[in-house]
Amino acid sequence: MNIFKERQQKLQTELIARGWDGYLVAYHVDIFYYCGSMQTGYLFIPAEGEAVYLVRRSLVRAEEEAAADVEVLGSLKTLGERLRARCAGARASAAGDAPPLRIATELDVVPVQLFTKLQTALPGAVWEDGSQLVREQRMLKSPDEAAAIRKAARVVDAALETVIPHIREGMTELELMAMLEHQLRLQGHQGIMRMRAFNSELITGMVAAGASAAVPTYFDGPAGGTGLHPSSPQSSGRAPIRRGDPILVDLGCMIDGYLIDQTRTLVIGDLDPELQRAYDVAEQVLRATEARLQPGAIAEHLYLLALDHVQEAGLSAHFMGYGADQVKFLGHGIGLEIDELPVLAKGFKTPLAPGMVIAIEPKFTFPGRGVVGVEDTYLITEDGFEKLSVSREGLRRL
Amino acid sequence: MNIFKERQQKLQTELIARGWDGYLVAYHVDIFYYCGSMQTGYLFIPAEGEAVYLVRRSLVRAEEEAAADVEVLGSLKTLGERLRARCAGARASAAGDAPPLRIATELDVVPVQLFTKLQTALPGAVWEDGSQLVREQRMLKSPDEAAAIRKAARVVDAALETVIPHIREGMTELELMAMLEHQLRLQGHQGIMRMRAFNSELITGMVAAGASAAVPTYFDGPAGGTGLHPSSPQSSGRAPIRRGDPILVDLGCMIDGYLIDQTRTLVIGDLDPELQRAYDVAEQVLRATEARLQPGAIAEHLYLLALDHVQEAGLSAHFMGYGADQVKFLGHGIGLEIDELPVLAKGFKTPLAPGMVIAIEPKFTFPGRGVVGVEDTYLITEDGFEKLSVSREGLRRL
Repeated sequence: MNIFKERQQKLQTELIARGWDGYLVAYHVDIFYYCGSMQTGYLFIPAEGEAVYLVRRSLVRAEEEAAADVEVLGSLKTLGERLRARCAGARASAAGDAPPLRIATELDVVPVQLFTKLQTALPGAVWEDGSQLVREQRMLKSPDEAAAIRKAARVVDAALETVIPHIREGMTELELMAMLEHQLRLQGHQGIMRMRAFNSELITGMVAAGASAAVPTYFDGPAGGTGLHPSSPQSSGRAPIRRGDPILVDLGCMIDGYLIDQTRTLVIGDLDPELQRAYDVAEQVLRATEARLQPGAIAEHLYLLALDHVQEAGLSAHFMGYGADQVKFLGHGIGLEIDELPVLAKGFKTPLAPGMVIAIEPKFTFPGRGVVGVEDTYLITEDGFEKLSVSREGLRRL
Repeated sequence: MNIFKERQQKLQTELIARGWDGYLVAYHVDIFYYCGSMQTGYLFIPAEGEAVYLVRRSLVRAEEEAAADVEVLGSLKTLGERLRARCAGARASAAGDAPPLRIATELDVVPVQLFTKLQTALPGAVWEDGSQLVREQRMLKSPDEAAAIRKAARVVDAALETVIPHIREGMTELELMAMLEHQLRLQGHQGIMRMRAFNSELITGMVAAGASAAVPTYFDGPAGGTGLHPSSPQSSGRAPIRRGDPILVDLGCMIDGYLIDQTRTLVIGDLDPELQRAYDVAEQVLRATEARLQPGAIAEHLYLLALDHVQEAGLSAHFMGYGADQVKFLGHGIGLEIDELPVLAKGFKTPLAPGMVIAIEPKFTFPGRGVVGVEDTYLITEDGFEKLSVSREGLRRL
């Protein structure tokens, strides 16, 4: 069966369990997940029956791409009537005194203005927040999703290997980043790394060296970077890369919609022994995490374990950022977006399960000196994990 | 006076006129506009008194960058109390029986979940939709904003001129785009072109050639493009550029936060006479629009004038897309985002005013053959306009 239809059916099972009549998928990334197309409109998945993709434009492309009936969106005034008709099967038992429709949508991303329009279009409907439901379903990847991430992992590795021989003392962070991005694009990077969180942006990751990598950012991640301007204050700036600077290459790309995220630490010459030791601890944390990385492991335990490890090494103040700018996680789910479930952080009691894909990124920040660390992306399998990242580990001396 | 403080004061005048107590700026682009920083948090601008930037991270960077008092955001539970304290001056007349706070925020972009949290944090507050207010203020650019756009215009021109000699028959759209993006990045392009509209994304524009440029997209613009995959279905794909194909280079970049948008049509060899004629009509439409481009001109009139012009030329079916996929505008405001006010479209009665910056983009789509057209970005001045785009016009034969 078509993978998109399978996803719709899995969602339908959850809708029925919750007593919801349907899901109005409004967010473009989720629309793609459920029907394989990303045109402008809404994908309505009733609890029972066929999904319908109500499209503003392009109708032609939606018809070519989507695993769903495609109809012209038209006026929002007719939306209520049309959704109700789609739910007719599910509501047969309630014929006569039709109760209000219970419809879910993604309240974590749908803007208030749009939601108000939808409420007006469906008077009397009861709206449910379906964000968590979709995020939990998307957390478990199918084999084709894992394959796309594997492909992205190979692209990142190839870009890195192509660029490494060109890294020179005095080259700016931006020059290095531009070279990496050029290689990624030529191999099919779709140009950004999508994020679900409000006000968050990511192009190809965080590439920075020495002190500027340790400059904290708004970004909910351990690496920093000055960025080019206060209007995009993260990642590469115009600082030249100096001999002995740790060069943090936290790099990703989007291939066929799917993301990879990996970090390697490079240095021209030798690293200061204290930073070298911190790098080694980062790899030890990754090994210790891998030793527990299997179905049933609790997400937050892996984080707490890492905290213990880091404390024993005397590096707590530097772990995942420094001081007030520390972030409180060790890893994050990844797929169509960079900020997926599960999160390896306190409060996340999720037991790991086969199909989850997680980027794990122990890093240490030394203000004025730089950031060192490593990051790999893993697929949880029946009996443990498969490392999707293929770039070789170890501090890379140039 | 600091430009950001001036913007805050201008907003305060509007808040007072509306009887609103303050504006909780939540959207990162607007936060940057009003205080010069883009860290995570909220910028609260009371109707009277000093603005406060409540920051989650990075506090250090906010303090360095922002034209506002900076405080730690802390728990949302204390938010109501703190905003009320900031409004104390404005509410003195109501002492004793404090009426509910009237607070605006950007309901066009703030997600429902976040808004619900804010409502909970400020029980009893009355929320106003401040989207239009901010968008209207941002519509009128200050000299420093125009200067940033001028800078971006020079970067796009330089990238285009650097790349043009390398365009070859058989090169793919993606290869051309990657080369352009590499040049843009090296000169400081911040990596994306921001959009305010829900579900919209743009990296560096739309570069496509021949039939694939005419493939319609979800994107609310006249140019199309297959894109690399249904998960990013617009702009460059992997089609090779052939002799005689119109190559549409609709290109922009973000420099110091500000965007430029321009389109040039290129061809290896000669263009089919029908497409050549359509290109000429596009330039005529641009000239006719320029003749009316001055303070007082009504935005929609410029669009309607273009429609008349195009109809006389017998090209209505091809204007700004083809058939059901036509878009209904001639131009759009541009600044920190690509989809700013004013829009040159039906229903927009806005009279043009000095300080507006507008990208005007007459284009013609021929299914199976390609898209031709031209786009320049203009600053409205006291006595007419200044063309900010510097790339030379005319069909470019390679």
